[in-house]
Amino acid sequence: MNTSEDEVIARLRGIARSGAAAGQVRLGIGDDAAIFAPKQGHETILSSDWFIEGIHFSRTLHAPDAVGWKCLARALSDIAAMGGTPRCLLLNLALPSTHTREWLMHFLSGLRRASQKFGCPLAGGDTTQRRDILINVTVVGEIRKTLAIRRSGAAAGDAIFVSGTVGEADLGLALLRRSRRRPLRTTSALRKHLYPEPRVLLGKWLAEHRLATAMMDLSDGLSTDLSRLCDASGVGACIRAADLPAPQLSAGTGKWKFKNLDPVALALNGGDDYELLFTVPRHRVPRVPKTLRGVRLTHIGEITRDRRLALVTLNGEAVELQPRGWDPFRRDSK
Amino acid sequence: MNTSEDEVIARLRGIARSGAAAGQVRLGIGDDAAIFAPKQGHETILSSDWFIEGIHFSRTLHAPDAVGWKCLARALSDIAAMGGTPRCLLLNLALPSTHTREWLMHFLSGLRRASQKFGCPLAGGDTTQRRDILINVTVVGEIRKTLAIRRSGAAAGDAIFVSGTVGEADLGLALLRRSRRRPLRTTSALRKHLYPEPRVLLGKWLAEHRLATAMMDLSDGLSTDLSRLCDASGVGACIRAADLPAPQLSAGTGKWKFKNLDPVALALNGGDDYELLFTVPRHRVPRVPKTLRGVRLTHIGEITRDRRLALVTLNGEAVELQPRGWDPFRRDSK
Repeated sequence: MNTSEDEVIARLRGIARSGAAAGQVRLGIGDDAAIFAPKQGHETILSSDWFIEGIHFSRTLHAPDAVGWKCLARALSDIAAMGGTPRCLLLNLALPSTHTREWLMHFLSGLRRASQKFGCPLAGGDTTQRRDILINVTVVGEIRKTLAIRRSGAAAGDAIFVSGTVGEADLGLALLRRSRRRPLRTTSALRKHLYPEPRVLLGKWLAEHRLATAMMDLSDGLSTDLSRLCDASGVGACIRAADLPAPQLSAGTGKWKFKNLDPVALALNGGDDYELLFTVPRHRVPRVPKTLRGVRLTHIGEITRDRRLALVTLNGEAVELQPRGWDPFRRDSK
Repeated sequence: MNTSEDEVIARLRGIARSGAAAGQVRLGIGDDAAIFAPKQGHETILSSDWFIEGIHFSRTLHAPDAVGWKCLARALSDIAAMGGTPRCLLLNLALPSTHTREWLMHFLSGLRRASQKFGCPLAGGDTTQRRDILINVTVVGEIRKTLAIRRSGAAAGDAIFVSGTVGEADLGLALLRRSRRRPLRTTSALRKHLYPEPRVLLGKWLAEHRLATAMMDLSDGLSTDLSRLCDASGVGACIRAADLPAPQLSAGTGKWKFKNLDPVALALNGGDDYELLFTVPRHRVPRVPKTLRGVRLTHIGEITRDRRLALVTLNGEAVELQPRGWDPFRRDSK
């Protein structure tokens, strides 16, 4: 029996209702559009993200529950990167007709957990049928006027920080790929690859304390994303390999060897971390805590006037830092 | 030479800048998210729409300029269907690397014309590489509080109206398919298929005059969409085949014969019209003009207490009206 579009929509509507409190969503799934009541004195933050089978996830490697969590988590990360609070989401889903029942149920269960945890109810979207699984998530967030943190505010002398660890999600993907049919121990790297935690609280905290001059989230890899932040701000940067919160290859990788994985290269070029990269004026650095609600904040370098990107290697040598993160239009470059 | 994601984004940024006045868009393409300043006393309307090669358009049949226009026009139609005013859009684009130059340029040109005509500048989105062309458009609109027109407000006795013609876009598609390599005369049916005009002004007018009790746009076909409006309102409907503003098969179809096309069937089940379907309390029907700014408004039937859908055929016979419009999950049913 075929499922009709209206039946798929009915399933989504179930999720929307049972999700987080509707909050400012005045009209949800089932009409031509959703209606959202903006908060006075706030600006609206809008972000969309693709999550496509064969690019961002694999039908065989990734459980539908993780796909549901992560497609929302990455979009929420963009709201976090502005310092905003998520308010609601639009889910755009194209599915094979074989995936409108069990797969959809598990997918929606992962999505719902992220939606509840971050207070971001499902408000609308569009569904269609397709041989591949295509997902596009739009998240609407809010922030008090003048508080949003852009990429373009970094100034020479600012300290560069990252949250959490960088490169760990890429290590998690490597672990998952090598695991094949063997049961895989849940490690923090694997969790980070499958169920990343957008840094919403940290982003809000930095915005409310007006501590960060520039901020963005790390989705394509530190080397690529840092170069974007520097381009937007018209500055350069120098970071120190020794200070990078790189993943520990010994911890949690179990019996697999990672001879060709270098922690510094992972930290510089591994994508999908959804950590925050932000800059803080030098005199305010002491106000940045070592950890915020369990999330480590690490000072990894400085913004420079000179527009180049430099890396001080583990040997103490200063070299040019090349953007070698993820670029969907140059997939073979990695 | 490969195009990088940053180059594609630079092209989009060019469009965003040269587009309609930025209006309430405070921060556009190039940051983690867009920032939008909502108008006081207004609610935000949010709508997303897929536009996918092989489902909604064909790379060989449809010029990129028309793809650019139509992907935005259909999303704007959802804003029109609430009575709202479009404010900005997020464009999500997945393209083959062969399409990041000429095809993208023409696509963006069509998108820009729609964006300028309807005052809806490009504010953000996401791009990636893919063998197929995948488009998802999110449009943000606004409407004064309490004015939004939902699907659920129709009451027994209300008159049912449609704008423009119904079934004409499907006729345009048939014309385009039969034209093959012969040059095709531009007919209104073809224009309607390639460059539909979302009824934004009509939607606003109906909302501001508080004339419509329920409204939606016709995207999947009158029979299917009317059944959705009736479901949402908990009512039924009776419409008259003789009153449907069906396409004229003789006019503009040139030398091609359409023996198997029936105007009434086209009007009932043809999709992609992006006209408005709305209901008006009986005593207010005289206040609905015959045309509004050149767009015909036709009274096609009545809402009934009985929850069934009925059609009075051209022979005057009352039959059950089956929803036979477009359903992506039952594509073979059409």
